[in-house]
Amino acid sequence: MDDTLIDVPRGLTNVVAARTALGDVRGHEGFYHYRQYSAVDLARERTFEEAWYLLLFGELPTASELDDFRARIVTARRIPDEVRPLLPAIARLTAGGDALAGLRMALTAVAAADRVRPLYDETPDARLEDAIRVAAVTPVLLATLHALADGREPLPPRDDLGHVAGYLHLVTGRIPTAQEERALSAYMTAAIDHGFNASTFTARVIASTGADLTSAVGGALGALGGPLHGGAPSRALDTLDEIGTPDRTDEWVRRTLAEGGRVMGFGHAVYRTEDPRSRMLREFAEGFGGPRVAFAVQVERRVQQLLAELKPGRELHTNVEFYAGVVMELCGVPRSMFTPTFAAARVVGWTAHILEQAADGKILRPSSRYTGPAAPQPLPARVPAAS
Amino acid sequence: MDDTLIDVPRGLTNVVAARTALGDVRGHEGFYHYRQYSAVDLARERTFEEAWYLLLFGELPTASELDDFRARIVTARRIPDEVRPLLPAIARLTAGGDALAGLRMALTAVAAADRVRPLYDETPDARLEDAIRVAAVTPVLLATLHALADGREPLPPRDDLGHVAGYLHLVTGRIPTAQEERALSAYMTAAIDHGFNASTFTARVIASTGADLTSAVGGALGALGGPLHGGAPSRALDTLDEIGTPDRTDEWVRRTLAEGGRVMGFGHAVYRTEDPRSRMLREFAEGFGGPRVAFAVQVERRVQQLLAELKPGRELHTNVEFYAGVVMELCGVPRSMFTPTFAAARVVGWTAHILEQAADGKILRPSSRYTGPAAPQPLPARVPAAS
Repeated sequence: MDDTLIDVPRGLTNVVAARTALGDVRGHEGFYHYRQYSAVDLARERTFEEAWYLLLFGELPTASELDDFRARIVTARRIPDEVRPLLPAIARLTAGGDALAGLRMALTAVAAADRVRPLYDETPDARLEDAIRVAAVTPVLLATLHALADGREPLPPRDDLGHVAGYLHLVTGRIPTAQEERALSAYMTAAIDHGFNASTFTARVIASTGADLTSAVGGALGALGGPLHGGAPSRALDTLDEIGTPDRTDEWVRRTLAEGGRVMGFGHAVYRTEDPRSRMLREFAEGFGGPRVAFAVQVERRVQQLLAELKPGRELHTNVEFYAGVVMELCGVPRSMFTPTFAAARVVGWTAHILEQAADGKILRPSSRYTGPAAPQPLPARVPAAS
Repeated sequence: MDDTLIDVPRGLTNVVAARTALGDVRGHEGFYHYRQYSAVDLARERTFEEAWYLLLFGELPTASELDDFRARIVTARRIPDEVRPLLPAIARLTAGGDALAGLRMALTAVAAADRVRPLYDETPDARLEDAIRVAAVTPVLLATLHALADGREPLPPRDDLGHVAGYLHLVTGRIPTAQEERALSAYMTAAIDHGFNASTFTARVIASTGADLTSAVGGALGALGGPLHGGAPSRALDTLDEIGTPDRTDEWVRRTLAEGGRVMGFGHAVYRTEDPRSRMLREFAEGFGGPRVAFAVQVERRVQQLLAELKPGRELHTNVEFYAGVVMELCGVPRSMFTPTFAAARVVGWTAHILEQAADGKILRPSSRYTGPAAPQPLPARVPAAS
């Protein structure tokens, strides 16, 4: 069937793999949106739960719809009793290592306890239930595993806090300030979705087979662990640590580029302008003030000048990782929880994409082009049996 | 960037997502191959380990290379001590449910204990080591979880048995006959790879981000659980059970089609001829003989005649699921272990594809086309705070 194959750019770049009403990224404009609203406007002015509701239902909630939705989230985030005994063992096994692997195990355990069914065997209502369940329990599982790995007793979620403040409370052990809640909520809301990244695509590929929703989220979490995916704000802070003091910026950047290294936190595959998330998060960071923020701003400016000088013709702005790391640090999120916190936000986007793909119902199954030696060749004479 | 989008058939059908030297399916010829050899020839005449070696290294092994490779598999299939205490809890949680979910958890636990690293941070040799590790330990984990869920003490793997006979021994608790070993080996060898199915594609998408190898296999296992994926030979046996006796075939088929149901075990997305795997497995089944096989052959013939009559113009042959189920039953594999046994074979194909994708190094990241309402619209007036 070789003659029917359709060749496209390597890596499927720009190939339309799905139609979506969930949102889009307009890289040349430095703009992205969820449904009909600017994602940055939502992140600045609305709660995480409102953006979540918007993605699931297509409209922002009324006050009473939001109340109901919050109550639904509180119910949905319960860890099943059969799963609790596994969590200390999972935390021990993944401590100091891959928190996303721990989450994958824990989510699969929750799905097994819930007896979740394949997407194509479920009604749209039951799928929606699963979607809220998985996205609601994810931050609780992450914070619980984090506490256990730290040797602390996990806290129970507080129903009087919003989704983001509640998560931050579980991670840090203290009630966040209003400023911390606003800043982390802005970050997490802005991180819910961002076009057709590799993890979202993975989630949709798995969902398109009709597998259960947690299988699709597990695949997305696997893709998120890849160095090419992005979403690792800790690397940008590592850059700040390596530079150490502002006066060492020039020497560090020149040396890193000379050695062929990348300056983490700068440049993005999609934006040709400043990343709109980066601009927003810098403003939240500047609201906190202090020497750490001043240092980050100084480094950002100087790195941009140096990159313009050393790599002329390319505008290399900070990407979301740079100030995401600064903001999470200001909010008291430990560095090992940066990528998990990103996942706790992005899982809302993944689950919305999974629902959309499941409603489509068509399997995503491309082809490959065979490039090896001609087949069939006759089998060579049998080697003498080895044992 | 909408103007640069490339529209392709829905579901990415026939779109070349990767180049591969691992094999191909030629649907119009009823033929598929691993590297340069017919997969069915390999399944009939060579051991599972030889086909595995061929996929990893491009050539069949010499006798001494095969000896070395078998020793490597025996070493690679060890379950880490830190993982053993988790297995009873995982078995309990997934008993009677989704064995693939149990395998996903167990493999993730092994990867955490092994401290596996992202593919792009590893040398080709270390990646190969990971690939053999994951494919070697998979059948041991599956059989161990199966025994635990059954309330039996898991057996230790026997080093004097080949890969397939060793797996069958762990599953059934007895040393297989030579006929059973040959038949199951033929099935499992034929199931190692089969073009660019959704699970293989998933594995390559995740691998393309540079994530660790187990993350990619976990995603593939998730996709395999989807009803549209195929690879569920138990459904074909369920068909035999529902028919019950040969004289009821006509009535059952007419009723199923009239109700809009599918006759499981018949038809394939790729083959327009008889599925070459089906033909081979029927011969192995006929070698066993007995009333069950005679019943299956009778049902197959009659269903084909009826489908030709009721759905003229479409040749609906048995697919691999039909006789795969019959062969596994003859070998003593319980029905709940049919899809896991398929996974124990296919994991060799997945890992070979993951290595090929990792060597490529380019992320698989297509795009989506936004179809929702125009954005941005101004945010509506804030709803009164709900709490």
